[in-house]
Amino acid sequence: MSHNTFGHLFRVTTWGESHGPALGCVVDGAPPRLPLKAEDIQQWLDRRKPGQSRFTTQRREPDAVKILSGTFVEDGIEMTTGTPISLMIENVDQRSKDYGDIVEKFRPGHADLTYFLKYGIRDYRGGGRSSARETAARVAAGAVARAMLPEMMIRGALVQMGPHKIDRANWDWNEVGNNPFWCPDAKAAAEWEIYLDSVRKAGSSCGAVIEIVASGVPAGLGSPIYGKLDAELASALMSINAVKGVEIGDGFGAAALSGEENADEMQSGPHGIEFSSNHAGGVLGGISTGQDVVARFAVKPTSSILSPRKTVTKGGDDTEIVTKGRHDPCVGIRAVPVGEAMMACVLADQLLRHRAQMGGSGRNE
Amino acid sequence: MSHNTFGHLFRVTTWGESHGPALGCVVDGAPPRLPLKAEDIQQWLDRRKPGQSRFTTQRREPDAVKILSGTFVEDGIEMTTGTPISLMIENVDQRSKDYGDIVEKFRPGHADLTYFLKYGIRDYRGGGRSSARETAARVAAGAVARAMLPEMMIRGALVQMGPHKIDRANWDWNEVGNNPFWCPDAKAAAEWEIYLDSVRKAGSSCGAVIEIVASGVPAGLGSPIYGKLDAELASALMSINAVKGVEIGDGFGAAALSGEENADEMQSGPHGIEFSSNHAGGVLGGISTGQDVVARFAVKPTSSILSPRKTVTKGGDDTEIVTKGRHDPCVGIRAVPVGEAMMACVLADQLLRHRAQMGGSGRNE
Amino acid sequence: MSHNTFGHLFRVTTWGESHGPALGCVVDGAPPRLPLKAEDIQQWLDRRKPGQSRFTTQRREPDAVKILSGTFVEDGIEMTTGTPISLMIENVDQRSKDYGDIVEKFRPGHADLTYFLKYGIRDYRGGGRSSARETAARVAAGAVARAMLPEMMIRGALVQMGPHKIDRANWDWNEVGNNPFWCPDAKAAAEWEIYLDSVRKAGSSCGAVIEIVASGVPAGLGSPIYGKLDAELASALMSINAVKGVEIGDGFGAAALSGEENADEMQSGPHGIEFSSNHAGGVLGGISTGQDVVARFAVKPTSSILSPRKTVTKGGDDTEIVTKGRHDPCVGIRAVPVGEAMMACVLADQLLRHRAQMGGSGRNE
Amino acid sequence: MSHNTFGHLFRVTTWGESHGPALGCVVDGAPPRLPLKAEDIQQWLDRRKPGQSRFTTQRREPDAVKILSGTFVEDGIEMTTGTPISLMIENVDQRSKDYGDIVEKFRPGHADLTYFLKYGIRDYRGGGRSSARETAARVAAGAVARAMLPEMMIRGALVQMGPHKIDRANWDWNEVGNNPFWCPDAKAAAEWEIYLDSVRKAGSSCGAVIEIVASGVPAGLGSPIYGKLDAELASALMSINAVKGVEIGDGFGAAALSGEENADEMQSGPHGIEFSSNHAGGVLGGISTGQDVVARFAVKPTSSILSPRKTVTKGGDDTEIVTKGRHDPCVGIRAVPVGEAMMACVLADQLLRHRAQMGGSGRNE
Repeated sequence: MSHNTFGHLFRVTTWGESHGPALGCVVDGAPPRLPLKAEDIQQWLDRRKPGQSRFTTQRREPDAVKILSGTFVEDGIEMTTGTPISLMIENVDQRSKDYGDIVEKFRPGHADLTYFLKYGIRDYRGGGRSSARETAARVAAGAVARAMLPEMMIRGALVQMGPHKIDRANWDWNEVGNNPFWCPDAKAAAEWEIYLDSVRKAGSSCGAVIEIVASGVPAGLGSPIYGKLDAELASALMSINAVKGVEIGDGFGAAALSGEENADEMQSGPHGIEFSSNHAGGVLGGISTGQDVVARFAVKPTSSILSPRKTVTKGGDDTEIVTKGRHDPCVGIRAVPVGEAMMACVLADQLLRHRAQMGGSGRNE
Repeated sequence: MSHNTFGHLFRVTTWGESHGPALGCVVDGAPPRLPLKAEDIQQWLDRRKPGQSRFTTQRREPDAVKILSGTFVEDGIEMTTGTPISLMIENVDQRSKDYGDIVEKFRPGHADLTYFLKYGIRDYRGGGRSSARETAARVAAGAVARAMLPEMMIRGALVQMGPHKIDRANWDWNEVGNNPFWCPDAKAAAEWEIYLDSVRKAGSSCGAVIEIVASGVPAGLGSPIYGKLDAELASALMSINAVKGVEIGDGFGAAALSGEENADEMQSGPHGIEFSSNHAGGVLGGISTGQDVVARFAVKPTSSILSPRKTVTKGGDDTEIVTKGRHDPCVGIRAVPVGEAMMACVLADQLLRHRAQMGGSGRNE
Repeated sequence: MSHNTFGHLFRVTTWGESHGPALGCVVDGAPPRLPLKAEDIQQWLDRRKPGQSRFTTQRREPDAVKILSGTFVEDGIEMTTGTPISLMIENVDQRSKDYGDIVEKFRPGHADLTYFLKYGIRDYRGGGRSSARETAARVAAGAVARAMLPEMMIRGALVQMGPHKIDRANWDWNEVGNNPFWCPDAKAAAEWEIYLDSVRKAGSSCGAVIEIVASGVPAGLGSPIYGKLDAELASALMSINAVKGVEIGDGFGAAALSGEENADEMQSGPHGIEFSSNHAGGVLGGISTGQDVVARFAVKPTSSILSPRKTVTKGGDDTEIVTKGRHDPCVGIRAVPVGEAMMACVLADQLLRHRAQMGGSGRNE
Repeated sequence: MSHNTFGHLFRVTTWGESHGPALGCVVDGAPPRLPLKAEDIQQWLDRRKPGQSRFTTQRREPDAVKILSGTFVEDGIEMTTGTPISLMIENVDQRSKDYGDIVEKFRPGHADLTYFLKYGIRDYRGGGRSSARETAARVAAGAVARAMLPEMMIRGALVQMGPHKIDRANWDWNEVGNNPFWCPDAKAAAEWEIYLDSVRKAGSSCGAVIEIVASGVPAGLGSPIYGKLDAELASALMSINAVKGVEIGDGFGAAALSGEENADEMQSGPHGIEFSSNHAGGVLGGISTGQDVVARFAVKPTSSILSPRKTVTKGGDDTEIVTKGRHDPCVGIRAVPVGEAMMACVLADQLLRHRAQMGGSGRNE
């Protein structure tokens, strides 16, 4: 059973609080002899780290990762050994301050409340364990997963900010790195910049929708009935802070289609089966089809806002709360690399599960 | 690790194929001394069983459940003993027939393809293991879960059929049993009847959206970070046949809200905290707030349709397929009791997890 | 987490009580396309079934196994499909009788007491869930495991009955089937027959030590640190009814050796490394060496005896108990096929774990 | 599934190599609001740390533990918060040296060989992951477990060194701290000192037997059939480095007893059931009886010895090996605190499992 462990065979156990000395994870189950050094992980952490534009929290964290175990240098190459890989990121900018309001009052829509109701104690500094800082450990683990999946490309993009969606006709993966939003539509990105500035200046916040696409996924990954590829993706993505919905392929849109419209017709091609469409998002019966695996998730607006909201104190008295301080006006932006990491972890796990059951049977991988 | 087991402490292992001799499940981890007899389970199976209207498959299955282990009669009351509860449902109407087309050809959008790609062998009769008949075992397990949760009420409703949504202003739980669709809006139900008749007669199919609401859930259930209540619900609901999307509370709608709109404000009331709204769907930080837990899921249209679709044969040749036989034109209808059962199983599991960690700490349950 | 499930990737979930309608197991995780039919399983059950000599319980159970799911006939061969294999054995000879004494009194050394202390309710008929009848399900599962391990030979023998040990110089595997004790020493078997007759006629009971040897195990199986091959064997064998000790290789004898004596020296040979001895029992650091894997376990005397013993009633009053009825005077005899089955299950599980982590690394299997 | 995680609800994930920068563990599942500070853990680590007498390795490690997450100070008391507790011990004395021989040659009886055979790569410095240094993390985790079990006393003693057993008539727990061997028999301790000096000076090594006793264990702990208290103890103790056998209660001795001798008779007493003896070691049917839980385990002699042994090189050539350097002549000595820690972890885990299933049923704990 797992509270803080994700995955079955590629297992990631994360630990750490927002304002503790460090955070990290232990990755267990990775195959031996995978080249892996700190820089391989750091490049992905750098994409998620805070303070890279005015649209994310101004907390300054280098998020420098250390490998504490699980690798060894042989013939000059640092490689995994098959033993647990312990990764640590020290917290640097836990700005000393007065936590006044959030010590005694609960922000509407924040986990502060439920951690207190459940555990009777919580590290209120920066949200403690419920802080999105925990996702740095996920991104680090995702980098190890990517090392196992060299033939796959896993990419994410923001496809909706607040009520504003991209125009899919404009989708260009090359644009994703050209704006601070991971937006694949250059025109939308320009409009979002104006929109998010107004949100930020008003001390408000907005939600977002993120799409993750994995290409190069072989057919056959997935463990029905209760370890289906899409079910595990749903769990993985829903576990990210502030996520309220997950879709595979056409998702909720599929409910409105007819059976004829929804059918992804097939024909044989030079590299095997070719599909006329991908309403299914690359998953049928919980098993990958060989098409791109496509998942989307919705992130709610950050609960820390400047407008006063009615709430209660720890002692149960009625009051109001205003949340100042360093916050992401659209926490969905930094969720893009996190969503990619979770997709990578799920695929790595399913790959190991597939190898276990199929390794001796001569089936395709 | 689990392929065919759901849950961590309330564990359900299902088995069986659509046209095998029987199907069933083993429920492990339930507390002892819960009153439980076959009739308690049968009442829920009767809600899901096929052939109850012209809108579901005409296969005639009594779905009569037998308890093979795990209960004992003491003082005239059949009770759980804390040992595994084995439940079996014998298949009766596995109509002997020529499976011709689906033996050699894959239906677009059906798991037939991926089971073959993964395993290299599949029981093609009625979809084998990937058939929705497996969900009978889920409903049986859900009945055991309900026996553990007497203070909770777990109800489901169809809120969209094909492109047609209910009017939420008309919501009346009492209407749910008055139509063959579990529709809470009498007016919508009448319109759906006409719509679905046309779909059925055309040999087509349509999707649906189902909403499950659990009332009476105490605050504090949920196991962050990777066993969050909403993450486990997402996995549970996505694992149901044909599901392509899951939402908690406002779901994807939350992405379009501002932080101010999304805040569920709080004040103290005679029974504890009172919330002004429930955008969160009863879950914050993966832990229940004490409000209703609200989840929705989208079901795609059944892939078995009369219109010919392009596909390939097992041997890789191009062909077309037409699927005749007994099928649900809107498989989402029978997914309502299945969704309820999955919600019950998740809550039972989280309740046991909560007791484990909190049992000795004096925290609320 | 598992109460009634054994194994991680080759998962066996057992269910059933001694006097319920049936018992069985669900085997999940086995590879597809393994030839498997009921007869393949039945042959192993026949070795364990009761009533085959005057030295085992006279309860008459055919122990006929049915495969309820998970196989399919293709090209005339019944094969696994990769889906859960449900196996059921119906109970036939649950002799109707007055359970008088054991309903109200606890047998010293019997699980009746602790099941009552834990659960507050128990199926007292024949020991209920704690009965050794549960081991029939283990033997059935072991037969599936053997189907995965065609290159291995897994054999067991009784090496001590009561205080009487075999002479290892006389060990002959061919003798194991020539006596009702699975004894590899013909001379000892003859003496044991006289000894056990006296025990049986006195209404007494005796313990035993069983040795299980697996040949053909490739080097490299085992999952350190907490899934070591020997640790999982220890758990597997200790979980068998009435077992009080487990050894690997020299076991407790190793404590009395010097480092020089205990070293299994190595040299290269035509088929790889050759060892001069096998004090280690084929396991180093929790990983197989390629030598025979050797494990032993001790079974205590059956607690059901004719001599009156002091005990207490359910109500807490002092009393005495005498246990009549059908019992094994030396329950260790029928533990031999059970120990073999557990060894097979552990090796199958470790093989799948090995394939998962090593499948893509080109390492040996 | 777990390679490097121990426990189900009280979960300990360890990481680290002998000569890496650090080692540690993540403890997940502990209840909130348990007082816990570094000093509480340090006291147990100090008992295990090397270099405390001439009879253990002369490597100088302070084994200073840091708590990196999972606690918070409230009202001046550092307490657990219910989130994962990350513990780290930095390695200090990884003496820089030439690893020459063990880089290329395998020590007979050492895990060096099997790690290489399995993974194709290993950190050979000090045994890498297979080093007994990993057990420092177990002792740290055991200290957290003890914090959950204030009513229990868990103690260990060395009862046999090489071929020399203690006289049980001399057993005095107060003696355990008076000699460098955790020996409860003062007379034996004096003799062992002479014996072990001769072993040490000869560059040889010897084995040992350790006994762990837990008092104050309530009746009812244990999770049959496959999570039995004794089965989990067997796995826990067998997973310790160099262990080759595990016994509960009379263990292998029980095989030689008659049913009459083995029966632990019962009568009612002022505090519940009183037993006339404890052959069972406090466990029946895998569930605790309320008596002392008694387990023993056998440790083989250290494989690093001065006498040359025949072996092979990585390349497969025949050679000899002599192992110099800092080693424990009797590694069993430092296994005593490790065995205690494993007992504590198993009991903490079973306590949580018991609370999960029984928390709502009013059964005793």
